[in-house]
Amino acid sequence: MADLSHDIASIVAQVKARTVQPVTLIDQALEFIATNDTAIHAWTHVGTASSMHQAAGAVDCDAPLAGVSFGVKDVLNVAHMPTRFGAQLPFHSNEPFDAACVTRLRAAGAVPIGKTVTAEFAYKRPGPTVNPHDAARTPGGSSSGSAAAVAAGMVPFALGTQTGGSMIRPAAFCGVAGFKPTFGAVGRDGMKVICESLDTIGWYARSVQDVRRIATVLLSGKKVVEPAQPPKVALALNYQHVLEPDARSALNNAVRILREHGSVCAEISVPDDLTELAAAHQIIMRYELARSIAPIAHRYPEYLSETLLECVRQGHATDHEEHSEARAFQREMTDEWRRIAQGADFILTPSVPGEAPRGLASTGSAAFNVAWSVLGWPCLHIPHGVSRNGMPLGVQLVAQRGSDMDLLAWGEWMEHLFTASELRDQPEPQSKAY
Amino acid sequence: MADLSHDIASIVAQVKARTVQPVTLIDQALEFIATNDTAIHAWTHVGTASSMHQAAGAVDCDAPLAGVSFGVKDVLNVAHMPTRFGAQLPFHSNEPFDAACVTRLRAAGAVPIGKTVTAEFAYKRPGPTVNPHDAARTPGGSSSGSAAAVAAGMVPFALGTQTGGSMIRPAAFCGVAGFKPTFGAVGRDGMKVICESLDTIGWYARSVQDVRRIATVLLSGKKVVEPAQPPKVALALNYQHVLEPDARSALNNAVRILREHGSVCAEISVPDDLTELAAAHQIIMRYELARSIAPIAHRYPEYLSETLLECVRQGHATDHEEHSEARAFQREMTDEWRRIAQGADFILTPSVPGEAPRGLASTGSAAFNVAWSVLGWPCLHIPHGVSRNGMPLGVQLVAQRGSDMDLLAWGEWMEHLFTASELRDQPEPQSKAY
Repeated sequence: MADLSHDIASIVAQVKARTVQPVTLIDQALEFIATNDTAIHAWTHVGTASSMHQAAGAVDCDAPLAGVSFGVKDVLNVAHMPTRFGAQLPFHSNEPFDAACVTRLRAAGAVPIGKTVTAEFAYKRPGPTVNPHDAARTPGGSSSGSAAAVAAGMVPFALGTQTGGSMIRPAAFCGVAGFKPTFGAVGRDGMKVICESLDTIGWYARSVQDVRRIATVLLSGKKVVEPAQPPKVALALNYQHVLEPDARSALNNAVRILREHGSVCAEISVPDDLTELAAAHQIIMRYELARSIAPIAHRYPEYLSETLLECVRQGHATDHEEHSEARAFQREMTDEWRRIAQGADFILTPSVPGEAPRGLASTGSAAFNVAWSVLGWPCLHIPHGVSRNGMPLGVQLVAQRGSDMDLLAWGEWMEHLFTASELRDQPEPQSKAY
Repeated sequence: MADLSHDIASIVAQVKARTVQPVTLIDQALEFIATNDTAIHAWTHVGTASSMHQAAGAVDCDAPLAGVSFGVKDVLNVAHMPTRFGAQLPFHSNEPFDAACVTRLRAAGAVPIGKTVTAEFAYKRPGPTVNPHDAARTPGGSSSGSAAAVAAGMVPFALGTQTGGSMIRPAAFCGVAGFKPTFGAVGRDGMKVICESLDTIGWYARSVQDVRRIATVLLSGKKVVEPAQPPKVALALNYQHVLEPDARSALNNAVRILREHGSVCAEISVPDDLTELAAAHQIIMRYELARSIAPIAHRYPEYLSETLLECVRQGHATDHEEHSEARAFQREMTDEWRRIAQGADFILTPSVPGEAPRGLASTGSAAFNVAWSVLGWPCLHIPHGVSRNGMPLGVQLVAQRGSDMDLLAWGEWMEHLFTASELRDQPEPQSKAY
């Protein structure tokens, strides 16, 4: 589907060599979006040609992301673009400044080309975006537009956010690489933060390699290590009962490939209190969401969905004591999981229960995401294989707090193995998986 | 100095009894500010009479803070009031919504009457506020205006924020009760967050009793416990070399009073790495500040102070790896300090090195504050005694994460003891302290 299908390294190399101008790339992206977004609905706002030309003209052609256009989830500010938070309010915000992460990317030569669809206040009510692989299926949420825009080849990368499963789930359903860094790794200035203890800025790209290139800008200074030996992998096989057969095959296939390349993959004992961790996530999320949304919910309840208002009500009924206890449990479990995952280079686990579900009314299950969100650990979705219905599948890699660049290095290593394996298995792709 | 010197309970009782109308209280406050703020400079914006009458008219006279006016540090939004962050930028923000904490207070019947002076982006460059006890001395910072407004009797309470020592220091210098809750206890929606891992919303009032009344609204649901026996007190006597004789006397006096009332006060061994904790604070603060300020610093450096720009430069030179290590150390030390303070009901320690220093160019030392800020523990300043120069003194109480309401209960108990002791020691107040 993609027209602008170069990887980020190639785009940057061309701009650096002056064989293509940033403004040409931007025009291509704008045209491609104009043609294709009527079907996908990934964008809530796209910059005007004149403002985008001005932005492209300001690009330093020797910068690390020179001329690379990107989408920004509509809970993050881009200077002089409307921010609507996926809500249907009778007004919108229009800040004179970028969010801090957008500033950083812009300083690295990237060009924010527009705002992408989010579920209402990054919670549940879906926006109009469809799954680029099948318009009758959800793209996942809440970062629906960003994942779909990358999957549809409209931009090389896009920013999203995760509170529960809002980065990894859309990545999995749309078949793109998706990364949620360690909680707090990317500053949230200029973001509408809904749940302070959970909300984390992340990004999508077409490959882990591209995801990693963005990380070198947003997590600058992180030591980049190249894996020297096959990784030790901890298999977290919780919630197996909700895993669809195709997704199970993709996971098994990934384990087989890892083992073929010398990895030791050992199942870890997932504590029973993973369910309690999910419960703690609910308490923290509702408590904080209710308080963050209160200023709007008090004045404009009639513009908010019943789903959101119900969460606000539940959150107000949750008291500070419960929230404190859930936060204390969150810290305890971070210690506990540090022990459980000790010695492993990363955890391998499903990203989602299976292919993107049919229908657009729900954004799907976050069963495989909330535990890592509440721990604040970095998570990476790597696409791998397709379902019988031709929908993308993949796996999730999770690492300890602060191991972001290590995790991405392992992720890129696995991406290479997956690509090689998929090439080898042709012309019957994934036949072994079933 | 105060004209509106009733405690919050009396104000609320009068409003509830319909013996005074909220609009009358608001008019009194507006008039008092108009008369006195030309000397104090605590406010950057005060609501117009018509908008304040409208706000007072909306008050539910049976609400827990009915008719109580308050000030809001100018890094927090109040609907339809300008927000300038203490900066001299060629524009200001003017949000249609209150910050979440303001919404919560408004829902409890309190009326935000205006915005108070803050140091530039809650960092170092002072605003025009003077110390209400001596106009030649600093009120402390960065929450200068809020502390001074309460000290001058302009409002019964005011909101501030703390990154390093920005709540406790102004409380100590201006002689009001000041409370910085547990990090994360009060949601920051609608706040200009500069340092995500540190910034904490707090409040000032004329007494710990009033501080506690606000806490029952902002930390609703926290179990309110009444101390049943004399507290076990841990004395943290670090940085004694910077402590002025008067401040030392005030601290010793507090210990004497505690012991007279049956408390066991035992000095705790403060780890050498308290200095490392301060160093971690510097790294985290600079790294995060640089990134939060970047969107503005890139576009309008000429409007920012050299002090702030230097911090931005240092922060950009701090890489993600250093920040991650400092954050990990922060978590380690939280565990370490939990062990150190185990068994104590609270820690007693100085709030500041001494009385408010002369001059307005600096906001004073945060030596006694940054460690607790980086640990995220709740801190309470209780005024106690005056210096030879007639300036307020006091002590700081610190408790473990999440013990906010317990700390305030102990604080109120100590406030009673201090008041009784001061009455007893008259007509030669504090004579014993020297």
